[in-house]
Amino acid sequence: MTDSEPTWDSWTCPLPLRDYPTIVMGHGGGGKLSADLIKHLFMPVFENPVLAQMGDAAVVVVPGNDRDLRLAVSTDSFTVTPLFFPGGDIGKLAVHGTVNDVAMVGARPLFLSAGFILEEGFPLESLGRVAASMAEACEASAVSIITGDTKVVDRGHGDGVYINTTGIGLVPPGVEIRADRARPGDLVLVSGDIGDHGIAILSVREGLAFETMLASDTAALDGLVAEMLEETLDIHCLRDPTRGGLAAALNEIAGASGVGIELDETAVPVAPAVRAACEMLGLDPYYIANEGKLIAILPAHEAERVLARMHAHPLGARAAVIGRVVDSHAGMVVARTGIGGRRVVDRLVGEQLPRIC
Amino acid sequence: MTDSEPTWDSWTCPLPLRDYPTIVMGHGGGGKLSADLIKHLFMPVFENPVLAQMGDAAVVVVPGNDRDLRLAVSTDSFTVTPLFFPGGDIGKLAVHGTVNDVAMVGARPLFLSAGFILEEGFPLESLGRVAASMAEACEASAVSIITGDTKVVDRGHGDGVYINTTGIGLVPPGVEIRADRARPGDLVLVSGDIGDHGIAILSVREGLAFETMLASDTAALDGLVAEMLEETLDIHCLRDPTRGGLAAALNEIAGASGVGIELDETAVPVAPAVRAACEMLGLDPYYIANEGKLIAILPAHEAERVLARMHAHPLGARAAVIGRVVDSHAGMVVARTGIGGRRVVDRLVGEQLPRIC
Repeated sequence: MTDSEPTWDSWTCPLPLRDYPTIVMGHGGGGKLSADLIKHLFMPVFENPVLAQMGDAAVVVVPGNDRDLRLAVSTDSFTVTPLFFPGGDIGKLAVHGTVNDVAMVGARPLFLSAGFILEEGFPLESLGRVAASMAEACEASAVSIITGDTKVVDRGHGDGVYINTTGIGLVPPGVEIRADRARPGDLVLVSGDIGDHGIAILSVREGLAFETMLASDTAALDGLVAEMLEETLDIHCLRDPTRGGLAAALNEIAGASGVGIELDETAVPVAPAVRAACEMLGLDPYYIANEGKLIAILPAHEAERVLARMHAHPLGARAAVIGRVVDSHAGMVVARTGIGGRRVVDRLVGEQLPRIC
Repeated sequence: MTDSEPTWDSWTCPLPLRDYPTIVMGHGGGGKLSADLIKHLFMPVFENPVLAQMGDAAVVVVPGNDRDLRLAVSTDSFTVTPLFFPGGDIGKLAVHGTVNDVAMVGARPLFLSAGFILEEGFPLESLGRVAASMAEACEASAVSIITGDTKVVDRGHGDGVYINTTGIGLVPPGVEIRADRARPGDLVLVSGDIGDHGIAILSVREGLAFETMLASDTAALDGLVAEMLEETLDIHCLRDPTRGGLAAALNEIAGASGVGIELDETAVPVAPAVRAACEMLGLDPYYIANEGKLIAILPAHEAERVLARMHAHPLGARAAVIGRVVDSHAGMVVARTGIGGRRVVDRLVGEQLPRIC
């Protein structure tokens, strides 16, 4: 940024109407409304230092053993509609989503719990398919479902099945991956094309037909993360950009680290079919959910080796450096556009697509 | 049991119509239908030795440290209706329920996750009350909510709020509490009056007015368990008789341990108001859910000291020896009635009261 350019440091979004007395769909969208709910309703009463980390997974030290044992714990409820979609289903998503959250602090996922809220009238055959899909995903990541729970709610008070998975993993010694560790000079990497999951869900939900079949990217990222950590333990931040997409994930990191993030729009990989769908529907791929992608922020001198390792992994074949951490416009993400302009990539208030995961 | 009495060993329930193609309310009732769903649908695909323990909480050994570190993990989704009831609310229940499940393997609860499924239109004020109630319950048990998740579902596809809590605790060395450890000669203790929670929910749900106000017994049992373990580590089984009540809990233990359990009906403590309500409504208190009671099975020579310690604790003031473990009628619970008869206390197929927790 040269001196002649406008400064972003004083930029603020006009205050939106966020003063709702009741829950609206946007409270679940991973945008500002979600953040408000957490900040103003949950955090004040549940306040504790671990929760305040606000990572994809919490890291806790378990007392009573000879050396520090750090557990990563993450919980996620899945309410995606439809339950079955191109590339996956709610069961796969429920395993991948929590495995990924645990992996995003660098932990090796070990155990999952599974809580099912079933709607009266849901076919057992469908539940069986969901369970089989979960089991398959567990096997691929070498995690076990060690405990579960099943509740049934009256017809009309559910949506077939809602699933909560809570994951427990072990953080290896020497790994310190947190949203507040991005430093000016670090590079921002993404593991592949963004927007696939959201657009796949949208296309099946709305009955849209595209020339190319769009499939969700749902996948477990624990293997990719383990390989990246073999290259270097010095990874500062990891995020899987699910609800709220790339924009929400990068804004969270920028805010937590008190740094600016500069994106090179031309470098962000988007599949042609997703780009076409977004243009047609007026959606911005930066805000579309992904379920098998990660963002990594790490020192520039480590980037080349890590990128090469990512390229060698099936889930990182299209990995790219998409930006860098800067010491201006702290807390904000700014994109350099293809035509030489700049724009603020803010978080959305609500969401573009509800019930995406 | 004398030789002239009928033998129970060959007793079987007439086969009920359990061949449903879809989910029915009874699949969530903690009775035979729930057990069928777990046994025939979930277990075959998720199969692993920890899940097969079928305890209130799973016990796993975490690898990578110098000595065995045993974690207790339990998950529960709460869908109780109404959300607020005499003696508690869904928030309190969500903390107590999971704290209790973790305590039922003798573990000290440490951490909770909390996943909220919110219905569009749910008042933020109500959500605030639920959250405050959870925080209060956490403080009482010295557990922290370390990670959370919030999803929103469309109006009509929820019931205000569903909560999943997953708890993690640490099992102290020397403690081996499992459903398969009941041995003939052991005594069966209960920590107090049974049936309070279920009848309280029922009374408010159905608008029934009783002479005495009935309140849920929802309470965290971790403190009571810790004191019992101070008396002896040699406790064989612990259960909190929630869904399915005393009957389901004792049948699970009898089945897992391959023993018979003989109940002394006159010794089972039931509050007069609950007994009256049950008689009026044709309900059996043995099948009514409790949310602040435990069953303990332990060697006869330890019973007196443990019972005395329980009596000194506010949650165990009305604790009593209610039966014993026998080597006849394996897998079955038989009650000696007040008038000298005997009856089989089987598990229900479904449930007496849906949406109780």
